[in-house]
Amino acid sequence: MKSLLSERVKGAGKSVIRETLKLTKKPEIISFAGGLPKPETFPYNSLAEASRKQIGENYSRSLQYGITEGVEEFREEVMKWFASFGWKFHLENIIATNSSQQAIDLVSKAFLDPGDVIFCGAPSYLGALQNFTLFQANTIGIPVDNDGINTTVLEEKVKQAQLEDKHTKFIYVVPDFQNPTGVTLSGHKRQRLVEIAEKYNLVVIEDTPYFGLRFAGTEEKPINTYDSHGRVITMSSMSKVLSSGMRLAVVVGPPKLLEVLVTVKQATDLCTSTTTQWIVTEWLRNHDMAEHLSGVRKHYKQNRDVMLDSLAKFFPDDEGISWTKPEGGLFIWVTLPKEIDTEELFHKAISENVAYVPGSGFYADDEVHSTMRLCYSLLSTEKIRTGIERLGKVIEKEMATVSHKS
Amino acid sequence: MKSLLSERVKGAGKSVIRETLKLTKKPEIISFAGGLPKPETFPYNSLAEASRKQIGENYSRSLQYGITEGVEEFREEVMKWFASFGWKFHLENIIATNSSQQAIDLVSKAFLDPGDVIFCGAPSYLGALQNFTLFQANTIGIPVDNDGINTTVLEEKVKQAQLEDKHTKFIYVVPDFQNPTGVTLSGHKRQRLVEIAEKYNLVVIEDTPYFGLRFAGTEEKPINTYDSHGRVITMSSMSKVLSSGMRLAVVVGPPKLLEVLVTVKQATDLCTSTTTQWIVTEWLRNHDMAEHLSGVRKHYKQNRDVMLDSLAKFFPDDEGISWTKPEGGLFIWVTLPKEIDTEELFHKAISENVAYVPGSGFYADDEVHSTMRLCYSLLSTEKIRTGIERLGKVIEKEMATVSHKS
Repeated sequence: MKSLLSERVKGAGKSVIRETLKLTKKPEIISFAGGLPKPETFPYNSLAEASRKQIGENYSRSLQYGITEGVEEFREEVMKWFASFGWKFHLENIIATNSSQQAIDLVSKAFLDPGDVIFCGAPSYLGALQNFTLFQANTIGIPVDNDGINTTVLEEKVKQAQLEDKHTKFIYVVPDFQNPTGVTLSGHKRQRLVEIAEKYNLVVIEDTPYFGLRFAGTEEKPINTYDSHGRVITMSSMSKVLSSGMRLAVVVGPPKLLEVLVTVKQATDLCTSTTTQWIVTEWLRNHDMAEHLSGVRKHYKQNRDVMLDSLAKFFPDDEGISWTKPEGGLFIWVTLPKEIDTEELFHKAISENVAYVPGSGFYADDEVHSTMRLCYSLLSTEKIRTGIERLGKVIEKEMATVSHKS
Repeated sequence: MKSLLSERVKGAGKSVIRETLKLTKKPEIISFAGGLPKPETFPYNSLAEASRKQIGENYSRSLQYGITEGVEEFREEVMKWFASFGWKFHLENIIATNSSQQAIDLVSKAFLDPGDVIFCGAPSYLGALQNFTLFQANTIGIPVDNDGINTTVLEEKVKQAQLEDKHTKFIYVVPDFQNPTGVTLSGHKRQRLVEIAEKYNLVVIEDTPYFGLRFAGTEEKPINTYDSHGRVITMSSMSKVLSSGMRLAVVVGPPKLLEVLVTVKQATDLCTSTTTQWIVTEWLRNHDMAEHLSGVRKHYKQNRDVMLDSLAKFFPDDEGISWTKPEGGLFIWVTLPKEIDTEELFHKAISENVAYVPGSGFYADDEVHSTMRLCYSLLSTEKIRTGIERLGKVIEKEMATVSHKS
């Protein structure tokens, strides 16, 4: 029966993270793998009350099918929230999706034929890479600097691909506290991305699920706001701020492109859950998102601070070792000396009861084996300290072995 | 920017139903178009209570990401419900999806390369056809008799396609109270489908969202239960029995095929909403689905009875006019004399304040213009009577004009 499967499935493997996580389930392991938000930061009591009300009293809408674009009242409430961040647009510029991951899927469906060329950070969000693989894209990785994707290299690679007559389609970026690096794209580079898109006839896919979670530095405006040619599609999500389980996200962009996504979405799932859209609408109508977020940020900042302190304290003092200093989000990215393979090291870490995600899976085309992603969202500050201490020792030991060998 | 769109999008149009429905919005129109379940049949009060409890007390799971296969407790409760219908299988045979429409999308992703040949009823569920178009399938329509898809024609068409060296992949059927015809596939033909699949190396996609809504005749076992070769994938949904807005469905099938769907789903939306899965789990644990469904069926039976009576009373007595007698579900299918184009007639009906869905959109490859779908789910019995009376007059007038012309 294997002969019946599509070409796209033959290229798609299971997620490295997913398989890795299976090894981190033992209770004695302190795991910096995964990338889940802390459910205690979600306003569960008020969401419970909002759900009771919306399902009980508004069932003719909250339990019924809705339009593919998404519940208007929901989109309006999200617009108000975004406007409070200074980001303003119209109802025709926003649709609801069943998670940002679905938004990526819709974008792939709308733009990608097999072999089409797209560009993204190296490293980049794994779920996006998996989706692009499913759509048989030729994904070209662009180095990620401390202020985001390297736009000079990007332009060279775009030029080169077009000289080779390849079908270039879009640039995919996570501009704020990128998964996996934690790095934020500078304002200057946001501007450059839009210019490159216009110059080379590309679309920019801006995926920003963490943008409400800035706890340090200065707010950057969405890439979308630099765009005057209708070339930027932005996706953001409720998953890190209100609830991951509701799978609610929005896409903001030019009506002409959204119309294509809506046609595609209609054939994909008819509409996003009206139930969860109405629950969140009710919640947003009665609560101050800014106030809620300030509490959430406090938690993540505390954890990041402890992790940065612990890294400085417990990781070997070696110029080959570095890590990012995120201004928001959930992740820190560690680079070790090239000789160290973090996939091999992973099993040694597991036997010392500490876990992380090896970085190699986050690259579309590069072979980089000396990086790792650490997530600080779920653990207590005490566990973060202990875990980083354990991991520091594992790395120290490995470096001694490696330098001994060489 | 149009040059950036994918080939698959260039073939995908907006739904005829969707565009048609826009014309039926005026309050004075009695609309048999659409295909929505009646929200009053959903147990909204108990669902509201279940949601309050699950979101408030089980937030660490109901608001968090879950595994791609779906919440185990949810799948177990659905298994118990299906077992009460005599349909038994194991946990490894069931996954949760974000609506049956998504299940169709996952199946298309898993099996279809451009140009692949698939088979389905003529007419068939429009949402499935739209999805197959998106995946650039070559969809071959098979006539639907009063006991379901014509398996003799099916076998001929499969043979022919394979002789022509085409890549044949699957047969898609809605076996119970098919959308749009209301027709149920006989037990004998269910058996034949499985035999044909085995003989010609095909998969059977069984889409049965209405199977809990039988109000007359004898229960038919799922096609799945006839299968001993692992070739049947069955999708069913909560959308017609508990809530459309939650977008919850399940896929039942052989673990080897489900594994492929799970890999694809992971790249598509990571996981189905845990929030809605836990709400429905809570509800199923505390309520008797059989008892609930008996109330739902009563409502739909009453409406169907009134519509059948009204059709007999108000439609012209002409041998060129016939309609189906569904034993469950939401739809009746009317066939008019070939000379009548129901797309043209639609506008005349609208000016007499009655609406339906023209049948032409439900055909993959045939050009049939004399059919229409009537949905009896949402209206009061009085409105059904009045609407069918109006429609009868519209048809009578049209037939007089047509016979005058010929």
